[in-house]
Amino acid sequence: MKAVALLGGPKENWPDNLKDILQKAQQKGAMIAASDRGSLYLHEMSVHCDLAVGDFDSLKANELKIVENSVSDIRYSHPIKDFTDSEQLFWTLLNEYRVEELRVYGATGGRIDHFLVNLFTFLHEPLAQFKEKVRLIDQQNEIVFLNPPKNIIQAKKKYRYFGVGSLGPIKDLQIKNARYDLTNYSSNSAIMFSSNEFLEDQDVEIKFNAGSGIFIYSKDKVRFDNI
Amino acid sequence: MKAVALLGGPKENWPDNLKDILQKAQQKGAMIAASDRGSLYLHEMSVHCDLAVGDFDSLKANELKIVENSVSDIRYSHPIKDFTDSEQLFWTLLNEYRVEELRVYGATGGRIDHFLVNLFTFLHEPLAQFKEKVRLIDQQNEIVFLNPPKNIIQAKKKYRYFGVGSLGPIKDLQIKNARYDLTNYSSNSAIMFSSNEFLEDQDVEIKFNAGSGIFIYSKDKVRFDNI
Repeated sequence: MKAVALLGGPKENWPDNLKDILQKAQQKGAMIAASDRGSLYLHEMSVHCDLAVGDFDSLKANELKIVENSVSDIRYSHPIKDFTDSEQLFWTLLNEYRVEELRVYGATGGRIDHFLVNLFTFLHEPLAQFKEKVRLIDQQNEIVFLNPPKNIIQAKKKYRYFGVGSLGPIKDLQIKNARYDLTNYSSNSAIMFSSNEFLEDQDVEIKFNAGSGIFIYSKDKVRFDNI
Repeated sequence: MKAVALLGGPKENWPDNLKDILQKAQQKGAMIAASDRGSLYLHEMSVHCDLAVGDFDSLKANELKIVENSVSDIRYSHPIKDFTDSEQLFWTLLNEYRVEELRVYGATGGRIDHFLVNLFTFLHEPLAQFKEKVRLIDQQNEIVFLNPPKNIIQAKKKYRYFGVGSLGPIKDLQIKNARYDLTNYSSNSAIMFSSNEFLEDQDVEIKFNAGSGIFIYSKDKVRFDNI
């Protein structure tokens, strides 16, 4: 089973057509899930929420009632705990519901402490075992988590650029079949090589021997404010 | 000397009063600098730019002319190089102009590969030696880079929350005098503890024995879209 999750990140960072994306995924049988305020956002978009996790403390009483009346499977978390709301959501989807592919929206933008929790969550067990099933997606980016040693990344027409890096030390990083190839780069610190480009529609090969690799599909936003 | 730098990140992520911030800094003698499109943004705000670095390839010919006619010290970079435009800007400010405090705007939002370059830049030499002089600031966040062993962080009234973490392995992380204290946390992977809070106006103490620590002042955005 596939799943799509909506976290509480700001709407400005969502893809413009998120409602369409969610409805199409649901029509194809994907599970729709949310953490905290994400469950209210789903209600506002008239998208049924199959699973919601949260302490919901940022919702007003009438908002919480709406969520409680509309969600199929609702799990209440506690403010002081080992898992954040989002982590508990990911764990429930990946471990309990055994979803094989999880696309996450609302994980970026706004508070950077929140974003970094979402970005670093999949470096730690028990979630790390699932990281290759997960993508964090927003209006301009799609983040893919990589395991060593070899990864083949498909070109996507809507993303002109990509970045490759590591969320910590990395050993022998190689990029092949890209505009800017890279050979055997090692570092003791996190690194990001940005603004690389696909060669027409060729897949890119990323290899490394140890580390927490990430690949970011990326595109510029159309700008209307040029003078 | 102090400096304020504006990178090319999207305007939506700037503090609402960035023009005021820049003008006040300039009146107090701070140097104003920009990379690439940031130099054009300064011109649009009628703020004089003392130093600009970039290949300026995202600017149209008439935009580049405006920048060239208005910037005191302009440095042209090359697309294929060891330093990105922003890194060359930071290096020029910190090493050549010897600025003692550098506040950076326009480093966040939009393309996440760009943001992570800015976040990870100060983990690597030759810039790492300067990291305690630098803050990355946007509308909701202020990122501070920490060295071991001990850091005292001042409470700021406009930020209710903060996050503490590490951009890679960390040893014996402690948080004291906060709403949620932490004792001797160690990890082999990057980590972020988000949504901590200051106790009234008390300073927070952050200690660790090894790692690339970061502290993020953070606040929620006022939301006008509640139902």
